[in-house]
Amino acid sequence: MFIAMNRFKVLKDSTQEFENVWFSRESYLHELPGFIAFHLLRGPEREDHVLYASHTMWRSSADFEGWTKSEAFRKAHARAGNTQKPTTLGHPEFEGFHALQEVASDGVARRVAAE
Amino acid sequence: MFIAMNRFKVLKDSTQEFENVWFSRESYLHELPGFIAFHLLRGPEREDHVLYASHTMWRSSADFEGWTKSEAFRKAHARAGNTQKPTTLGHPEFEGFHALQEVASDGVARRVAAE
Repeated sequence: MFIAMNRFKVLKDSTQEFENVWFSRESYLHELPGFIAFHLLRGPEREDHVLYASHTMWRSSADFEGWTKSEAFRKAHARAGNTQKPTTLGHPEFEGFHALQEVASDGVARRVAAE
Repeated sequence: MFIAMNRFKVLKDSTQEFENVWFSRESYLHELPGFIAFHLLRGPEREDHVLYASHTMWRSSADFEGWTKSEAFRKAHARAGNTQKPTTLGHPEFEGFHALQEVASDGVARRVAAE
């Protein structure tokens, strides 16, 4: 399993506007093979911003890479640039994470195959 | 849904040792109400470290807080301090995230109730 996170430093007076962009956009993620789930996350509040993250779980990093080369990706990002004024400090920071171990609700710890 | 992440800056020559501590420990998370899943994640490599994260999904932030006050939490953290030498740069950085929106594999975007 692979998690693709984009971290956004959202200006404190722009959080509602930032959230509305996500709530009103079309998502095409489920059209892609290997898509598991997407979450928009609100994280900790800091001095001059609130940390948000987009958080997408993929079956593998190859599935994530397939998405970045897809028509669905192009469509999603064409719309994402449509806001009037900046709502964030700087650009989002991308972090990709490979799962190494999983503990599910049965309590059994499983090593996850590298992908 | 609430995600509790601890971010670890692991020294490049200590990644195997760091992973082994996680692979060999007992997890008691599934004993707690509201536990969904735990993942140990390996993230991007940087100049002087590799970013790792522990990533636990809870039904709500209240369930996460219940875990931090539990006997299971105490047991897990008593063992976690047993390594011989530091494998990380500094202390882990905690970040808690509240899910605001979810897109599951059916492609339907749902607002998530605040919790």
